[in-house]
Amino acid sequence: MRTALVIGTGLIGTSAALALVQRGVVVHLADHDREQARTAAALGAGADEEPEGPVDLAIVAAPPAHVAGVLADAMRRGVARGYLDVASVKGGPRRELEALGLDLSAYIGTHPMSGREKSGPLAATGDLFEGRPWVLTPTRDTDTEVLNLALELVSHCRAVPVVMDADAHDRAVALVSHMPHLVSSLVAARLEHAEEAAVRLCGQGIRDVTRIAASDPRMWIDILSANPGPVADLLTEVAADLAETVQALRALQSGDDAKRRDGAGGVEDVLRRGNAGQVRVPGKHGAAPRAYEVVAVLIDDQPGQLARIFADAGQAGVNIEDVRIEHATGQQAGLVQLMVEPKSAQVLATALRERGWAIRQ
Amino acid sequence: MRTALVIGTGLIGTSAALALVQRGVVVHLADHDREQARTAAALGAGADEEPEGPVDLAIVAAPPAHVAGVLADAMRRGVARGYLDVASVKGGPRRELEALGLDLSAYIGTHPMSGREKSGPLAATGDLFEGRPWVLTPTRDTDTEVLNLALELVSHCRAVPVVMDADAHDRAVALVSHMPHLVSSLVAARLEHAEEAAVRLCGQGIRDVTRIAASDPRMWIDILSANPGPVADLLTEVAADLAETVQALRALQSGDDAKRRDGAGGVEDVLRRGNAGQVRVPGKHGAAPRAYEVVAVLIDDQPGQLARIFADAGQAGVNIEDVRIEHATGQQAGLVQLMVEPKSAQVLATALRERGWAIRQ
Repeated sequence: MRTALVIGTGLIGTSAALALVQRGVVVHLADHDREQARTAAALGAGADEEPEGPVDLAIVAAPPAHVAGVLADAMRRGVARGYLDVASVKGGPRRELEALGLDLSAYIGTHPMSGREKSGPLAATGDLFEGRPWVLTPTRDTDTEVLNLALELVSHCRAVPVVMDADAHDRAVALVSHMPHLVSSLVAARLEHAEEAAVRLCGQGIRDVTRIAASDPRMWIDILSANPGPVADLLTEVAADLAETVQALRALQSGDDAKRRDGAGGVEDVLRRGNAGQVRVPGKHGAAPRAYEVVAVLIDDQPGQLARIFADAGQAGVNIEDVRIEHATGQQAGLVQLMVEPKSAQVLATALRERGWAIRQ
Repeated sequence: MRTALVIGTGLIGTSAALALVQRGVVVHLADHDREQARTAAALGAGADEEPEGPVDLAIVAAPPAHVAGVLADAMRRGVARGYLDVASVKGGPRRELEALGLDLSAYIGTHPMSGREKSGPLAATGDLFEGRPWVLTPTRDTDTEVLNLALELVSHCRAVPVVMDADAHDRAVALVSHMPHLVSSLVAARLEHAEEAAVRLCGQGIRDVTRIAASDPRMWIDILSANPGPVADLLTEVAADLAETVQALRALQSGDDAKRRDGAGGVEDVLRRGNAGQVRVPGKHGAAPRAYEVVAVLIDDQPGQLARIFADAGQAGVNIEDVRIEHATGQQAGLVQLMVEPKSAQVLATALRERGWAIRQ
């Protein structure tokens, strides 16, 4: 790939453009808001001028609802050899394009699994996609050359290509992102009018479950509006499990021993299925979650304490795989939980104890 | 308080005993499993011998289902001036005690909001309760002297006392702990039979939502069995919201513009209520969540990198409030997200850039 045209210079489009420029590709930038394209150009993401002839790859980075229209226009003008979009939903835009009667052999739908809280070209960085999955949805009609152009883009962005069917992609993001987001909101919503005394008892569990409920509703209305079917299907399955769980809990309130045993069995079933599902969530290295051991260190939240802990761990030759800092309600003191490979836990605990740290292993 | 008797030398009982011994209280230890009391004594948690006369405070640390029986026995024998239990549910044990016709003026129900994945006396530590809320549920019949003994215990354990009504406590823990736990399991359960390609797309959001679904089902069956009513009530409220959310998503699938607008409004309502509830979850210092800014640093997961980052932050005089390490699927490289006070973010980013780190702010 020597030339590219990015149509839509928001966060995703500009970040891809920056990555391509960094790898030596000549990038042209276009946006229905010319000011935005000018900003992206000023950031070094390319030139905000029309290319003179067809480029190798046109990248359409418009919101899901506008993808088909923008793509159809670009394809009719013949601005590129290959075309792709990066919208978060893949089935709808493809069907719209098919309905327009376009030849789709030069098109591939893609979705980089990356994003930020911020948006617009000013939030863009060339490393936005680094190490993230980038879904490609070729069909049997997709030209191999176009698939290879998309793979080259993903490679330039240092993302990890994942090939999927468009509708399978939409069901997958409903499962791993859209449904959990709404469920997190539903749990958080229960706290809206809760008594202050109850809210004081919150710990790390509910903090984790409700974290993503803090996201911007406007962005999520767009995302969910583009994928309502698969999300509704999954929530309906959750609702069925939920109804059974309520029934099991009601049985546990019974005075009848047999009913209570049934109730306990029902609750156990939900918990065990939760175990079985949770273990499939990839850990930070993407494999099945590794069993880390936790070495917990007491700190008093003074600057430099974490630095000393990590320096001491480094001197002991131990790599910290993950960290969680838990501060107690109303207190400055807290626990630093260091997650390490099981073989390193004892080494680390001993080394830190020798250096004067209070360890709870 | 000069003397105490701990009945039940598991994790909680032994940890309280250790804290009391460290503050100079003479502690006696008892357990229906004599071996367990001997282990606690060997750890320095007190003497596994009956006290010669009544102690100041008897602490019953038995599972919820056995609390009333053990307390009734101790009170009939007159082993102490004051009695408390530490079970995770408070309404049921109180009603059982009332049904036994005991004078409850010398009793107070309590619940330290603390726990570990491990159990038994060997997992105990004197700092288990440090900075954690410890709920006290006095009634108008509770002797002030007994309330003060309980407050002294909480103080010795360096926990934060929170006074609540017993049933309000049970509803509160249902809200902030038991209901979110089951909902986390319900989300995770959807992954049990999911396709591998879909699971590969998991990111930090679903990882957080499903983290607590990894807990031991046996312990959670005990907890939920002791508090089924309030948990079922809350899940019923969640189910009602869930049904409305599904309806809104189905409306978004409609070909009718007015219906789609209604659907978007329904989804927005859930998301905004989630925002309003999430903001009430206390942050790590227990106040309303502070607005930290994130300074994101790219690393390649070599030992010592975190140590260098923290050392560099320390030299810049910046206190890291929280850390999140995010590794991409299938990759060793990752992002370290450093959460700092807003005023420190720019200082930290500049200092780290100067020291050669790749920053994404």
